[in-house]
Amino acid sequence: MPLSQIPTPACADFLSALTDTLGADAVRSGDAIPSDRHTDWSGTAPLAPLAWLRPDSTAQVSAALRICHAHRVPVVPQGGLTGLAGGAVPTPGAVVLSLDRMNAIESLDPVARVVTVQAGATLQAVQEAALAAGCLFGVDLGARGSCQIGGNLATNAGGNGVVQFGMMREQTLGLEVVLADGSVLDMLRPMVKNNTGYDLKHWFIGSEGTLGVITRAQLRLQPAQPARATALAAVPDVVSALALLGQLQARCPGGVAAFELMWDDFVQHALAWTGQPRPFDQDHPLLVLTDLSGADESALAQALEAVLGNAMEDGLVLDAVLAQSQTQAAGLWRLREITAEFPSRLAPINFDISLPQAAIGDFADRCVAALSSRFPGHRSLRFGHLGDGNLHLSTDARSLGDLSFAEAEHAVEAIVYGLVAEAGGSVSAEHGIGLHKKPYLGASRSPTELATMRAIKHALDPLNQLNPGKVFDMA
Amino acid sequence: MPLSQIPTPACADFLSALTDTLGADAVRSGDAIPSDRHTDWSGTAPLAPLAWLRPDSTAQVSAALRICHAHRVPVVPQGGLTGLAGGAVPTPGAVVLSLDRMNAIESLDPVARVVTVQAGATLQAVQEAALAAGCLFGVDLGARGSCQIGGNLATNAGGNGVVQFGMMREQTLGLEVVLADGSVLDMLRPMVKNNTGYDLKHWFIGSEGTLGVITRAQLRLQPAQPARATALAAVPDVVSALALLGQLQARCPGGVAAFELMWDDFVQHALAWTGQPRPFDQDHPLLVLTDLSGADESALAQALEAVLGNAMEDGLVLDAVLAQSQTQAAGLWRLREITAEFPSRLAPINFDISLPQAAIGDFADRCVAALSSRFPGHRSLRFGHLGDGNLHLSTDARSLGDLSFAEAEHAVEAIVYGLVAEAGGSVSAEHGIGLHKKPYLGASRSPTELATMRAIKHALDPLNQLNPGKVFDMA
Repeated sequence: MPLSQIPTPACADFLSALTDTLGADAVRSGDAIPSDRHTDWSGTAPLAPLAWLRPDSTAQVSAALRICHAHRVPVVPQGGLTGLAGGAVPTPGAVVLSLDRMNAIESLDPVARVVTVQAGATLQAVQEAALAAGCLFGVDLGARGSCQIGGNLATNAGGNGVVQFGMMREQTLGLEVVLADGSVLDMLRPMVKNNTGYDLKHWFIGSEGTLGVITRAQLRLQPAQPARATALAAVPDVVSALALLGQLQARCPGGVAAFELMWDDFVQHALAWTGQPRPFDQDHPLLVLTDLSGADESALAQALEAVLGNAMEDGLVLDAVLAQSQTQAAGLWRLREITAEFPSRLAPINFDISLPQAAIGDFADRCVAALSSRFPGHRSLRFGHLGDGNLHLSTDARSLGDLSFAEAEHAVEAIVYGLVAEAGGSVSAEHGIGLHKKPYLGASRSPTELATMRAIKHALDPLNQLNPGKVFDMA
Repeated sequence: MPLSQIPTPACADFLSALTDTLGADAVRSGDAIPSDRHTDWSGTAPLAPLAWLRPDSTAQVSAALRICHAHRVPVVPQGGLTGLAGGAVPTPGAVVLSLDRMNAIESLDPVARVVTVQAGATLQAVQEAALAAGCLFGVDLGARGSCQIGGNLATNAGGNGVVQFGMMREQTLGLEVVLADGSVLDMLRPMVKNNTGYDLKHWFIGSEGTLGVITRAQLRLQPAQPARATALAAVPDVVSALALLGQLQARCPGGVAAFELMWDDFVQHALAWTGQPRPFDQDHPLLVLTDLSGADESALAQALEAVLGNAMEDGLVLDAVLAQSQTQAAGLWRLREITAEFPSRLAPINFDISLPQAAIGDFADRCVAALSSRFPGHRSLRFGHLGDGNLHLSTDARSLGDLSFAEAEHAVEAIVYGLVAEAGGSVSAEHGIGLHKKPYLGASRSPTELATMRAIKHALDPLNQLNPGKVFDMA
């Protein structure tokens, strides 16, 4: 029986200290905790936390952490529970703490283009507030309606806009964080330039709740970009795709909003599943789907046509089609968006790998070769965000013979992550490490890096109170 | 007599351990240390270091730090010595360590747009290597010929290109750092997306040599931007200038290369000193000097004209002139570049302040009002990089009555930094803290932030070996 289910007198003292300080609204225990708090979208086996804390202010977060610290009860911060690495699942004997009651957009300055939000606001709420003020928030991802800004920051979320605007880190001007002992670290100074000692906010972004609880953030907004131009291009290889990307970025600095690569294995499945007509007379090894965005649609279309024309003359592009309308653009994007149907069409073993850009082509081929050698009939689909060096690979577990899903996953992960380590790549481009990728962290980080991470964790959270056992173990 | 000048037997042992391990070329002591190693451009009183170490490889840096660690001798990393805050000046009993022999551009990939450099390379060498490959390095500053990449990273240097490309942090994909005990932290993985545990490189950027010695870096390059369009515009106030900036950035995402604000106090002196004709029929409270850069000169000029035209209709711009040639553009820039003559024309007390963008106008006025109240005849010139929220203020010490320069500086700093603290600003936008701004660090950082910085410093450098006494004191 896990510790969290044993109602000891110490536990009763702890819960009443919390209730006395935070109020009954902010503390739920036992059956009053909804079961969705027991796990997250990663599918980890559920576990009931000792309590679910729902503070409604930074002062309450601070008080909650102070009490947990005094009682030596670990704290697992939870956002929208949309993480895929198990970073927010309860650990034995821990409380979970969520900021769903701290979801205000506190202020938005459309001229300085800064929004101040509480960490429990959903990504979509921030996007909508930005749009209503004539601005754009630079991060977007599929879970936008559920995921929260605090979780986006804690995982340094990426998603669709990275090639243009960067990840959550690049949007962040100021942060407020509560440390393990309840101290409030106020770093809410929305300045681009501020070289006054260590830039502490960067230590919390991407630390998956292990160093502090993010309570508020000041985020940068972009000017709205109402115009868009879309093209699909066939390229002979990844090197040519990279050169094409460089030419687009040179012609439209800041204007390349998407640069998605689809290998032919992906394209053939996408065509079959969507029933779309073939985009070109013949098959090609790689397709690039690219969007330019900005202020002036005809200028964007002209730039796209000019760059693609030159690239065809240079042999970088074999064939290309420019969307003549938003409807045509949506049609081209349907191919890429078939990934949403992977769970119903495959038993997908999904990878979220990052590599030095120039290495992606060889790496993708080596992956397929290694998988083919072990599993001759494997079905693997490759696509990625080339601008970010992010390769997604999905292997259908059902194409691997008689293995159970877990066995298949383990075998494929061992092959792919081994190649990632050889190539100096990352086992997690944007999903984080959480619980599930811990065994493979060593493929992307050296023992000295891991020792340094542990030293920092020990300095900021000496009792290992915050999200213990996530990302790495302290032992 | 400083410790560094006492040749004790322990010191002799230490020096021979260094010489035996690194070779005589890499270790200089006593009179063999050139006097320029005794101080830096900040004008700090010179102090002879115990030795000057000049390792020629990461392995030698590691060996040097291991020996210093074993002998408990502190190490002051030195770059090009161009810092203005005294971050690289020797401290009593310390050796200085410079990477001037590690100045290779190791590789450059113009397609993936990544350059790998040793930290002793000058900024200019990196810029030139980028240009030769048809690319652009995003950081530029006046000391480019002397300052080194290691120092640029250690201070998170800003300079001229921040509004377009960000600071050194934003250029950095990978780092190699040697820790206080000689461990080598290899973070040379040039990937945009890599969420595998803490992103350690960010902890060293801007830490002014107090957490580790940066030995190599992988830096992002930009596409070359051969075309440029320049305009000078008169605006009624800072809020209008910000709105104009927003409109330019909306029209040309990624294309605004400079957006410099000059208050009339600055403009009048610049006109008198340069002998340039007045740019407009009448005086205006503020002038904006802006550059767009990109691929196509006529497209940039059209965009600039269109945005300025609309802004004039909206009353955001009172008058404007577009440069019709590179010569005219250079003429407009002469006004702004008069700052190079400040040292010969004034006894300048210079400030490098950062503020939330929207607060700059009020803050600049409050500064002048506060200075006028204490020093009715003061001469203060205001200019800044509005896109970065960076305000420069230079007060002529000779306009403050009978005070010595040091007295005048102290009095003016107390007034200005007091206002910075009130406004939630930064006492150092881009110059760092080093030795000279330590007394004012508390104006921009809370006690909790300072305690957190000390905890991190203690975790990574428990003996306080690396650049001790810089940025903050450990006591």
